[in-house]
Amino acid sequence: MLHTLTSPLDMIGRSKGELDTPALVVDLDAMERNIRLMADFLGDGPVKLRPHMKTHKTPQIALMQIRAGAAGVTCQKVSEAEAMVDGGVEDVLIANQIVGPVKIHRLMDLARRARVMVAVDNADNVADLSRAAVATGVTLGVLVEINHGMNRCGTEPGQPTLALARIVADAPGLRFLGLQAYEGHVVMLPDFEARKAAVEQALAIAMGSKALIEADGLPVPVFSGGGTGSYAITGRYPGVTELQAGSYVTMDVGYKRIGMPFECALTVLTTIVSRPRDGVIVGDSGLKVITPEFGMPDIVDLPGAKVIYLSEEHTKIEVSEPLPEVRVGSKIELIPSHGCTTFNLHDWVYMIRNDVIEHVWRVTARGRSQ
Amino acid sequence: MLHTLTSPLDMIGRSKGELDTPALVVDLDAMERNIRLMADFLGDGPVKLRPHMKTHKTPQIALMQIRAGAAGVTCQKVSEAEAMVDGGVEDVLIANQIVGPVKIHRLMDLARRARVMVAVDNADNVADLSRAAVATGVTLGVLVEINHGMNRCGTEPGQPTLALARIVADAPGLRFLGLQAYEGHVVMLPDFEARKAAVEQALAIAMGSKALIEADGLPVPVFSGGGTGSYAITGRYPGVTELQAGSYVTMDVGYKRIGMPFECALTVLTTIVSRPRDGVIVGDSGLKVITPEFGMPDIVDLPGAKVIYLSEEHTKIEVSEPLPEVRVGSKIELIPSHGCTTFNLHDWVYMIRNDVIEHVWRVTARGRSQ
Repeated sequence: MLHTLTSPLDMIGRSKGELDTPALVVDLDAMERNIRLMADFLGDGPVKLRPHMKTHKTPQIALMQIRAGAAGVTCQKVSEAEAMVDGGVEDVLIANQIVGPVKIHRLMDLARRARVMVAVDNADNVADLSRAAVATGVTLGVLVEINHGMNRCGTEPGQPTLALARIVADAPGLRFLGLQAYEGHVVMLPDFEARKAAVEQALAIAMGSKALIEADGLPVPVFSGGGTGSYAITGRYPGVTELQAGSYVTMDVGYKRIGMPFECALTVLTTIVSRPRDGVIVGDSGLKVITPEFGMPDIVDLPGAKVIYLSEEHTKIEVSEPLPEVRVGSKIELIPSHGCTTFNLHDWVYMIRNDVIEHVWRVTARGRSQ
Repeated sequence: MLHTLTSPLDMIGRSKGELDTPALVVDLDAMERNIRLMADFLGDGPVKLRPHMKTHKTPQIALMQIRAGAAGVTCQKVSEAEAMVDGGVEDVLIANQIVGPVKIHRLMDLARRARVMVAVDNADNVADLSRAAVATGVTLGVLVEINHGMNRCGTEPGQPTLALARIVADAPGLRFLGLQAYEGHVVMLPDFEARKAAVEQALAIAMGSKALIEADGLPVPVFSGGGTGSYAITGRYPGVTELQAGSYVTMDVGYKRIGMPFECALTVLTTIVSRPRDGVIVGDSGLKVITPEFGMPDIVDLPGAKVIYLSEEHTKIEVSEPLPEVRVGSKIELIPSHGCTTFNLHDWVYMIRNDVIEHVWRVTARGRSQ
């Protein structure tokens, strides 16, 4: 049926197959099962979920996670946190260094209307945050980011971490709340036992610094970290209070490959635009709608077909069987290898239940990089 | 100086260093020299430039190219073509298969208000286009896409290409205008002589089919193809009438590495957010503002510093010298390895001349994937 749309919202109530492509779609039942699985795993234990919204960048999904028990959300950027608070989230951690006068000003504005925590790893930055908090009349929660093995940002364990914690605790307008540590260097190790050993090694280092700070008389009420690949390890580790897993909610091929128990709920609906010769079909999803950094996407329910290449606007698919049912104009679904960067390419996400478009949500934090 | 902005446009007239980051910036002088170099190369010769707008997705840049002599623009998607026509471009080639009733409907709407050509490689698709053109009362220019070696879309050379050309020529509402062929499989070969030989081999195949069609009594007024890597080859090849080079206008590291004579005018302004330990600095530009598929970005004017990793929101930079001037809060510039996909991550581009922001342009075709 031909329809000319004025807004993606007009698709509500229609069937998934009527969507024009490429389109980002989420299976609601599968996503809700993922949310439930994570909530049940954490239960009433000492670790609260603070899911990273970098995956979905969509306030409505964050609110579903919060209704299932999450304490709030984790963000990387001030502009992402603004999108979440604008969308109804009341508690945000920016698990990242916020540097520069414009962003710090925006951070303080945000702290007037939501509970905000931010990470630091540098004394000059602490001084800037302190001055701005005092000038604004807010008290900002601060976590010291500790480098427990990823070797990206973060203070070195031991004395350097304690020293910065002390500086934060003594800074007017700031409240030292604890530590933040992300084991990004090992969350995707394929072998679970190797991953567990590596994550626990990192956490042991970080907990050593936590003990050092506490022994110095400073309480450490918050220890926030972990990802989807380490949720079952970090989520049970003594001393951890918050788990930042994000990808679990809609999943991707990257995490599926290492055996995570969540379901792939996120796909990019794709139209076949060419069947130029035997063995090759071409779809209309390329690098501008689905990202390649963790490998090629998987194809849903098309045995013998494999994505071998993404160019900017084409999916090149090799097929080992004739697949006569796949014609020019047919639609297929691709599961991204990396959900987080794929979400960031889309302005809208179509939420599907039983083949019907139940919601059309704007990915409001898409492109929020500042 | 602290300023709270309501719109990126408020930055007009300020200095580049005042921009918050990450921010996409273009050096206007360098871009204008690139536009001039390409225009001078083609001169009044038989090949007209039809630059691919997939690089910049910004109508104002397309209009600058047209003022310098380009015949119009090349697009990949209907929604991109709409953005260009909305922005004042009057002549667009969609060098891609347009499949499905919604897109074909939009294509016909567009053909009522601009000169539009489209590529085809499939007889069913030709029939769909023909029916829609007749129903709308427009005549649509059509190029048959020929596979001269890339093995993505396109008809096979010889009889299959002639057969589809005949089908187009006989289809009501369509006008067969010629052939489209993109040598994407060889435009980035590092060695110029090897590239030249490969491009000429592909073009010889395509020109064989052009001759076959003409011998059959069908004129072939248009032969459109080529890219930045092949501009000096395809732009001089007998029988070619349009050159689709796009990346040349703002360039990237990918094309610089193979020795193209254009200047890198495009950078992502980046703030250093952490200097966690000796040998490492961390910037705030990651995979969500700069793409990695052709490798890591280069850094402008920072000898001894090298991007070794992009995570979603971090630039991890290894430094072999102390670089004391690079502090937390300092700004650096990254040159993307792939300009086209990097532009697609940004809503705004800041056009700089002599360090002053002369224009702030919306990247209106960003995310236009349908």
